[in-house]
Amino acid sequence: MSRAIVLFAHGARDPEWARPMQRLAESVRAAEPGVPVFTAFLEFMTPDLPGAAEQAVQAGATELIVVPVFLAQGGHVRRDVPVMLARIRERHAGVRIELRDALGESQAVIDAMAKVVLGKA
Amino acid sequence: MSRAIVLFAHGARDPEWARPMQRLAESVRAAEPGVPVFTAFLEFMTPDLPGAAEQAVQAGATELIVVPVFLAQGGHVRRDVPVMLARIRERHAGVRIELRDALGESQAVIDAMAKVVLGKA
Repeated sequence: MSRAIVLFAHGARDPEWARPMQRLAESVRAAEPGVPVFTAFLEFMTPDLPGAAEQAVQAGATELIVVPVFLAQGGHVRRDVPVMLARIRERHAGVRIELRDALGESQAVIDAMAKVVLGKA
Repeated sequence: MSRAIVLFAHGARDPEWARPMQRLAESVRAAEPGVPVFTAFLEFMTPDLPGAAEQAVQAGATELIVVPVFLAQGGHVRRDVPVMLARIRERHAGVRIELRDALGESQAVIDAMAKVVLGKA
């Protein structure tokens, strides 16, 4: 099993919007140098999720950990992502895909945000 | 000076989307019970930012800390928010407004997200 992490975010017209995503990807890479990390976007930015999955599989991944970098589980994560995962599974039959919860749902992230709001981080 | 915190997020059609925002608001309230915390949304959910500012001023706030609960500084935070803040300032001339950076730009939040991605949080 060769794992890859795919960070999946909304995307925006403003190119600067992707910067924290790149910082997150770099943080993850620094902590786990053996696991390739890819970024993917729903709109305005590339690659899309199937495109990033393609890159990961080309790089030898047989297991994709798809992490929605969203503040919450909304329609995009609950409806759009499963449709895209189905397309990826159709195309790459042997690849295992694990879909995580949106990062903003995690208590650790909420705690960190609260500390920043309170000026304690 | 009576401060209030206004957490401002994008909003979504899916009502569940607001849940992490409410959890964040509760975390901040629990840590600073003396500071009222309001939530505001750009679209799909209410109140909007001027509406939340109105609530805060009605509750006695003379200083608003506006915190964009966004993953990054994109067009919404950089273009839309200043326009709304100008409207709020026009309406509430004596009120001081401090606009913070988007929470997702903060290293503490990026670090927390990286830990969750890596299964270490």
